[in-house]
Amino acid sequence: MTRSLFDKLLDLALEEDLGHGDITTDSVVPADAKATAKVLAKQPMVVFGLRHFSEVFYRLDARINIERLVEDGAPVAPGTVVANLSGPARAILTGERTALNLLMRLSGIATMTRAMSTALRDYPNCRLLDTRKTTPGMRSLEKEAVRAGGGANHRMGLFDGVLIKDNHIAVAGGVAEAIRRAKAGNHHLVKIECEVVDIPGVEAAISAGADAILLDNMDDATTAQAVKLIRAAGRPIFIEASGNMNIQRIPRVAALGVDGISVGALTHSATSVDLSLEFQPA
Amino acid sequence: MTRSLFDKLLDLALEEDLGHGDITTDSVVPADAKATAKVLAKQPMVVFGLRHFSEVFYRLDARINIERLVEDGAPVAPGTVVANLSGPARAILTGERTALNLLMRLSGIATMTRAMSTALRDYPNCRLLDTRKTTPGMRSLEKEAVRAGGGANHRMGLFDGVLIKDNHIAVAGGVAEAIRRAKAGNHHLVKIECEVVDIPGVEAAISAGADAILLDNMDDATTAQAVKLIRAAGRPIFIEASGNMNIQRIPRVAALGVDGISVGALTHSATSVDLSLEFQPA
Amino acid sequence: MTRSLFDKLLDLALEEDLGHGDITTDSVVPADAKATAKVLAKQPMVVFGLRHFSEVFYRLDARINIERLVEDGAPVAPGTVVANLSGPARAILTGERTALNLLMRLSGIATMTRAMSTALRDYPNCRLLDTRKTTPGMRSLEKEAVRAGGGANHRMGLFDGVLIKDNHIAVAGGVAEAIRRAKAGNHHLVKIECEVVDIPGVEAAISAGADAILLDNMDDATTAQAVKLIRAAGRPIFIEASGNMNIQRIPRVAALGVDGISVGALTHSATSVDLSLEFQPA
Amino acid sequence: MTRSLFDKLLDLALEEDLGHGDITTDSVVPADAKATAKVLAKQPMVVFGLRHFSEVFYRLDARINIERLVEDGAPVAPGTVVANLSGPARAILTGERTALNLLMRLSGIATMTRAMSTALRDYPNCRLLDTRKTTPGMRSLEKEAVRAGGGANHRMGLFDGVLIKDNHIAVAGGVAEAIRRAKAGNHHLVKIECEVVDIPGVEAAISAGADAILLDNMDDATTAQAVKLIRAAGRPIFIEASGNMNIQRIPRVAALGVDGISVGALTHSATSVDLSLEFQPA
Amino acid sequence: MTRSLFDKLLDLALEEDLGHGDITTDSVVPADAKATAKVLAKQPMVVFGLRHFSEVFYRLDARINIERLVEDGAPVAPGTVVANLSGPARAILTGERTALNLLMRLSGIATMTRAMSTALRDYPNCRLLDTRKTTPGMRSLEKEAVRAGGGANHRMGLFDGVLIKDNHIAVAGGVAEAIRRAKAGNHHLVKIECEVVDIPGVEAAISAGADAILLDNMDDATTAQAVKLIRAAGRPIFIEASGNMNIQRIPRVAALGVDGISVGALTHSATSVDLSLEFQPA
Amino acid sequence: MTRSLFDKLLDLALEEDLGHGDITTDSVVPADAKATAKVLAKQPMVVFGLRHFSEVFYRLDARINIERLVEDGAPVAPGTVVANLSGPARAILTGERTALNLLMRLSGIATMTRAMSTALRDYPNCRLLDTRKTTPGMRSLEKEAVRAGGGANHRMGLFDGVLIKDNHIAVAGGVAEAIRRAKAGNHHLVKIECEVVDIPGVEAAISAGADAILLDNMDDATTAQAVKLIRAAGRPIFIEASGNMNIQRIPRVAALGVDGISVGALTHSATSVDLSLEFQPA
Repeated sequence: MTRSLFDKLLDLALEEDLGHGDITTDSVVPADAKATAKVLAKQPMVVFGLRHFSEVFYRLDARINIERLVEDGAPVAPGTVVANLSGPARAILTGERTALNLLMRLSGIATMTRAMSTALRDYPNCRLLDTRKTTPGMRSLEKEAVRAGGGANHRMGLFDGVLIKDNHIAVAGGVAEAIRRAKAGNHHLVKIECEVVDIPGVEAAISAGADAILLDNMDDATTAQAVKLIRAAGRPIFIEASGNMNIQRIPRVAALGVDGISVGALTHSATSVDLSLEFQPA
Repeated sequence: MTRSLFDKLLDLALEEDLGHGDITTDSVVPADAKATAKVLAKQPMVVFGLRHFSEVFYRLDARINIERLVEDGAPVAPGTVVANLSGPARAILTGERTALNLLMRLSGIATMTRAMSTALRDYPNCRLLDTRKTTPGMRSLEKEAVRAGGGANHRMGLFDGVLIKDNHIAVAGGVAEAIRRAKAGNHHLVKIECEVVDIPGVEAAISAGADAILLDNMDDATTAQAVKLIRAAGRPIFIEASGNMNIQRIPRVAALGVDGISVGALTHSATSVDLSLEFQPA
Repeated sequence: MTRSLFDKLLDLALEEDLGHGDITTDSVVPADAKATAKVLAKQPMVVFGLRHFSEVFYRLDARINIERLVEDGAPVAPGTVVANLSGPARAILTGERTALNLLMRLSGIATMTRAMSTALRDYPNCRLLDTRKTTPGMRSLEKEAVRAGGGANHRMGLFDGVLIKDNHIAVAGGVAEAIRRAKAGNHHLVKIECEVVDIPGVEAAISAGADAILLDNMDDATTAQAVKLIRAAGRPIFIEASGNMNIQRIPRVAALGVDGISVGALTHSATSVDLSLEFQPA
Repeated sequence: MTRSLFDKLLDLALEEDLGHGDITTDSVVPADAKATAKVLAKQPMVVFGLRHFSEVFYRLDARINIERLVEDGAPVAPGTVVANLSGPARAILTGERTALNLLMRLSGIATMTRAMSTALRDYPNCRLLDTRKTTPGMRSLEKEAVRAGGGANHRMGLFDGVLIKDNHIAVAGGVAEAIRRAKAGNHHLVKIECEVVDIPGVEAAISAGADAILLDNMDDATTAQAVKLIRAAGRPIFIEASGNMNIQRIPRVAALGVDGISVGALTHSATSVDLSLEFQPA
Repeated sequence: MTRSLFDKLLDLALEEDLGHGDITTDSVVPADAKATAKVLAKQPMVVFGLRHFSEVFYRLDARINIERLVEDGAPVAPGTVVANLSGPARAILTGERTALNLLMRLSGIATMTRAMSTALRDYPNCRLLDTRKTTPGMRSLEKEAVRAGGGANHRMGLFDGVLIKDNHIAVAGGVAEAIRRAKAGNHHLVKIECEVVDIPGVEAAISAGADAILLDNMDDATTAQAVKLIRAAGRPIFIEASGNMNIQRIPRVAALGVDGISVGALTHSATSVDLSLEFQPA
Repeated sequence: MTRSLFDKLLDLALEEDLGHGDITTDSVVPADAKATAKVLAKQPMVVFGLRHFSEVFYRLDARINIERLVEDGAPVAPGTVVANLSGPARAILTGERTALNLLMRLSGIATMTRAMSTALRDYPNCRLLDTRKTTPGMRSLEKEAVRAGGGANHRMGLFDGVLIKDNHIAVAGGVAEAIRRAKAGNHHLVKIECEVVDIPGVEAAISAGADAILLDNMDDATTAQAVKLIRAAGRPIFIEASGNMNIQRIPRVAALGVDGISVGALTHSATSVDLSLEFQPA
C-alpha cells in the first residue's frame, strides 16, 4: 500500500500549493486552452520520479497526456527531453511546480546514489544501503530513488526489521539481554540486527546470536578485525558498516569484506537537480 | 490553518516510519522505562524546527517533557545542547528519527538562508525571498525556516498571489492581455506581478499596470536598465530579481536597487545539518 | 481546490439525509426500476446550481443522465423546465431533496443578486460585492451564485486579502500602526484594505498608505466627502461602501463614485426559490 | 453522533474561511494580545446556537472563555447582550464571522418557528413540524433550532422513517402495493406514512394499513373530510397536513383536527437575524 | 450508505493485512504474471458474501475478472466451485486471505441462520430475528447474511428503533414513564418496543401504549400467558421473544403465537465455514 | 500504530451502532442521570479485551470511571465481576453493546487459545501459533487475545514476513527460484519461510536456503521424517506444522519436534463467551 502513502503526500502537496485555487491561471488562461510542453534535463542526472511527476497532473486533469521518453533510472545528458505533455493548459500550469519539485528531488537522490554505487562496482557482494534519514513524508519514494540509482534498501521503517542501537542496549542492560528480548518478543520470521561500536560489542553480538551486526563508526583496522571475528562465527551473519562514509572511503570499506555499507547522505544530503517544463509553440 | 497541514505531514511521517509499530523498541524496552536525552548540534548551524521536533514526541506520548535551550532561529556552535528530553524511553526511541529528520532539514534551510541574508546585510530594503521550489508536504515549514534565517516569504502558493509567467503570457497572447484578465478575474485586494525577461517586457508590464515586476534571468546591466525604467513609472511597483543567484552575486544585484531577490536554492539545495539525540546515563 | 470543499459538503449533506440508507425507496422501489423526471421552476428566478444539483445524483448513481435545459445564471419564467433526468428510479428519489435544497438556495441568491445588480446597471464602474456573511459550508457556492446574478466577489476568506476592521485597529492602537504591521507581515502581492467610519479615519487610512478603504455605515453626505478626499490622494485607492444597503439606496451610493458596494443580504437574507422535481409518466 | 456531523461542518466552515490563515489578524494583532467582547442582539429574536457559536472559538483556541447570558431558545429584546467572550484577541477576531454566521442563521430559524408555534398555541395536540428542506450540511442544527422555537421534528432523514410519496406510489403501482412493500422491507419498529392528495388516496392508505397519512396540498374542506374518514378507521393513525402553509392558515388547519402541520418555510425561508460581536474597551 | 461502512471496513482489513505491502508476492511473483483460480466450498454451506469477496479484489486490481457461479444465499454441497477468478496473479495472491476471511465468516452466519429458519418453516408468521450482538465493524454485512439465510432483521442499530430495556426502565422509574418519554422524545414515525420479564411487566407495557413487546427470558408457560394478554389488548402489538433460544426450542416458542424470535447466536456464535481458493494450472 | 487501527475500528463500530444517535436512551434517560454497573462473567473464561471495552466508553464520555477487577488474560469462574463502571447513565447504556461485543469475542478467542496452549504445556519449545484467518478489521486485537491465552503470534500480515505458499511456488516455477527471488527482493533483515507438502518439498526448501519451513497437512509419519531431515541441515531452521490441527492432535505433533503449530481455528472458529453488563441499584 505504498501507493496510498504517496496519495496522501500528493493530497498534502497539492493542498499546500493550490489552497483554494490557482488564481493566476484561472483568471488568465481560458478553461478550454490546450498546450504542449516538454520536460528538459538541464544538467547530467539519473532521472527518477516520472511516474510520480505524472500522477500530479493526472490528479488535476485526467485528460493530460504524458509521454515518458526515458525510463526511470536512466542516466541522461543535459538537454535531454525526458517527457512530453499535452492537454489542458490550465492543469499543466497549475501542476508544474509540484510535479517538478518531486522529480527534481527524487532525481537528485538517484543521481547521488548512482555516483556512490558506481564507486562500489568492483564489489558486487557489498550493497550500498540507504537509511531512515529521509525527508518526512517521502520515505518510500526516496527509497525507490535509491534503488533506481543502484543502491539497495535497508528496512523501510521501524515496523519491518529489528535494529538494536546503543540506546536500546543501554536500557536493556547489555547486548545479550537486548538480543534475547528481541528474539522473544518477535515472531519467528524476524531477523535481529545489533549495532556495535567496538570489538567487545562484536563478540557479544556474535555470542548472543545476532543475525546481522552493524559496525558503527569503526576505523578500517577495527572493521577488518570485526569482519574476521564474525566470519569465524560458524553461521551466516550479515555485516553492515556505517558512519562517516563518503565516495572515497566506501570502496575501501567494501574491500574489507562487509556485506553492506549504509550511507545517510544518499537521502539527507542529496539536493535537487535542475529540470524545467517548457511550453511548446502551438 | 498551517498547523493542520503540519498535522497531516506528521501523520504521514509517523505512518511511514512506524507502520504497525516499532518492533525493536517494543520488544527490547520495557513499557515503564524512563530516559533522559539531549539534542546536540554537531556543526555550526542556525537551529530551526524545535517546535516541530517536539510535536513528534508529544504525538507519541504526551508525558514526554522537552526543554528547549535555544530559540528557533538562533545560531549555535558545534557541541551546543539545543534541547533536553525526559520521559518514557519507548516514545523517545520511537520518535527520534522522525523528529531529527525534521529538525535537521529545517535547520539546514535556516542555516543556508542565514548565510545568504547576511550577504545582503548592507541592503536592508532588499528582501531575500524564497520560492515555491520546496519539498512536497513541507512548504509552510520550510518557509518558516527561511524567515528564521533572515529571509522573507514570497507568496505561500498559487492561491494567495498572482504571478504571471511566460507560459501564461504565451497562452493569453501578450503581457497587456494577461494583466487585464488577471485584474478582471480577481478581487480588488489582489496585486498582479508579471515575470519579464527583457526590456520590452518591462515596458509592457509597466504600461499594462503591473503592481510588481519579476526580472527573470537578466544580467546586471539589463537589470539596472529595468530598475531605472520602472522607477520612472510614477507609481510604486515592486521589483523582484531571480535566476542564477548565489551568495556572491546577490549583494551586487541588491545594489542595483531591486526590492527583492528570490533564490530557489534556499529550499531546493539546502541539505540537512547534523544533530544527534543522545541518551544520558540514568 | 474549491471543488474539494464542495465534495466535502456533499459528503455531509448526503450523510445527514441518507444515514444508513433511504428505507422508503429501498423497500418500495425495485433496484432495476427506471424513471424520467423534470425539474420545474415554480416562480420567476435566476437559476444557479445545476452543476451542483447534478453532482448529487452522479454521486448516488453514475448512470443517471441529466440534461440541463438552461444555463446557470439564466433568468427563467414560472413553468420553465430547467432540466430533465432519466435513469435508475431509486437514485433519483434518494437524491431529490438534497439536490433541490442546493438548487433552491443557490438560485435564491442568484435571483436576489440579479435584482440588486440590475439596480446598479447605470453604474458599470461600481461593483456589487458580496461579503463573508455566507452559510457555513457553502461559501464558495454562494459566491459563485453571486457572480451568476451579476455581482462580484470580495475576498473569499480570511486567507486571501487583508481587511483591517475597527477591532484590529483598536488592538493595534491606530490606523497607521495597523496598516504598517499589515504591510510588514505580508508578502509583496497583498493589498491592504482598511475599514473606517468617519472622515478622520479616511484621512488616516490615506496617509498610512491603504490600497483600499471601506466606508462603513456612512451617510451619503459623508460618503461623498470621503470619496472626494480619497480621489485627491494621488494614487489609485479602491473605495468600498457598506452598511444598511438595500435596493433603493445602492444606486444613490454608486452615484457618489465608490468602486464597490458590499451587501451582506445577498447571502444572509436570500431565501430559497421554489423548484420541484416531477416524475414523468413512463 | 449528531455532534460528529457538526464537527465536520465546522471543519468545512473554518477551512473555507481561514484557508491557510487569517492574514489580517496574524499580521496586525500580537499573538499575546487579550480581548473581551460582547455578543449583542440587534433586533427582537429567539436566540439559538450559542453552543455552536462557542464551539467555533473553542476549536481555534481552548483558552477563550465564553459566558452565555441567555439560554438557547430564549426570546430577547434588541440590545440584549447574549454572551460575553474573553481571551486571546487573535482567536476572537478569526472566529467571529464563522461563529456569527451560525448563530444568526439558527436564531433566524428559531425566531420564525416561535412565531408560527405561537399561532398554534390554542392547539396543543397539533405539532408544528419541520421538513427535510434544510440547508445542506446544517440539517441537525436547523432541526434543533426548530425545537428551540417550539416546533417538533419530523424524521431526521431518509434513514429513520418511511414516508411514501406520490413518485414512490407511481413506481410501485398503487398505494396498497407501496405500503405492502414498505412493511415487508422494514423491521417491525418502523411506522409507515403515506402521502395522499385526495379522498380516494386517503381511503386507500387507510385500508392498506398506513400508520400515518400526509394530506398534501388539500383545501380545508377536503382536509376536514379526510380527518373524519381517518378517525373512523378504528385504529390510531397520525394525520399530517402540508402544502402552502403560512402563519394565517395553520391555526385554521389545526382546528380541523390534524395531529401535525409541516412547514418547509421554517428552514428554507428563514433569514438570518442580526447579531454583532463588539470588542470592549480594555 | 451502508456501502460506505463496508468501504471503511475494507480499508481497515486491507491496511491490517497489507500494511506497507505484500513482501512475499511482490518479490516472488512478476508484476505481469497472470493466474486463474477457483473458490471451492469444502463443506455443506449457504454461501453468502461473494459480492464482498469480489470487492476485495476489485480494490487491489480492477483488471481481475470474477465469475460468480452461485447466487448469494444458495445452499451448496462440498466440492462446489462457487466462483472463478482470473487476472493479475499478484492481486489474487495478495487479496486471497482478506477475501476468504469475509466470505467464510458471512457464509457461516448464513449457514447457521438457514438451519434455524428451516426449524421455523411451519410458522411463516414468526420471524427469526437477529440482534445487535454482531462483530464490531461488520454489522450490516452480518445482517445481510442473516437475511440470506432466511432470517429477518431487527433494528440496524440504536438510531432506527426504540427498544426500552430494563436498565432504561430502572432509570426512568417505571415502564409507563419510560414509554411516555420515548413517545414524547421521538418523531411520529417511530414505534416503541419495551422489554419485559414477567406478566406485570407485560400488563404495564400494554397499558402504557407500547407498539411492540419483547418477552425476555420467559419460560413457555409465561410466554403463552403473555401472548394471550397482549392479543386481548385491542390493537396490533408486535410480540418478540428472546433468551436462551436454540434450534430445538424455537419452533415450540413460535407455536405459542409470537411474531418473532430473536437469536443472538446467529451472529455471536456462528463460526467460519471452510472455503479455499485454488490456483488452476495455466 | 496498532492503536490507530483500533481507533478506526471503533469509529466504524460506533458509527454502525449509533448512526445519528441512540434514540431510546436520549429520549428516556435524562442527560444528567448517573449509574453504576458491573460486568459479569456468565461462564468460565479467560477474560481479554477490558482495555478495548473501556475505550468504547471513554470515547462516548470521558467522565465514565471503569475499575478493572481482573487482569486481561486471567481465567475466571462464572459469576465473577470483571469490572465496575460508574458515570453518566446515557453513555453507559449507549456503549454497552459495542463494548460487550468486543469483550465477548476477544475473551472467546483467549479462552479457546488457553485450552489449546494448555494441551501443549509439556512442550515448552513448541509455540502455539495463530494465523491470518482473523476477523476483518480485528487482526491485531485477535492476535493480542491469542497471546493472552498463551499462544504466540505468527506474522501480523503480508508486510512483516515472507511465507512462500504453493501458489507462489507454482508461479515462480519451483521452490529454489521462489526462495532466490524472495532473498533478492527483500532487505537483509527478512527471513524466508516456505510451505511444503511432502518430503521432496522439504529437501528443496532446505537446499534453497529457507530460514523456516512450514509442513502443511502432513501426517505424523511424514512430519517426523521432515523434522529429521531439517534438523540434519546444519543450520537453524524453524519448523512449523499446520493443517487439520485440533486439541487432541497438537501434543502429538509437538512431540515430533516441531518449533510451532499454527491453528486457524483459534480465530476463525472461536465463538463469543457470555458476559453481561448489569446496572446496580442506586
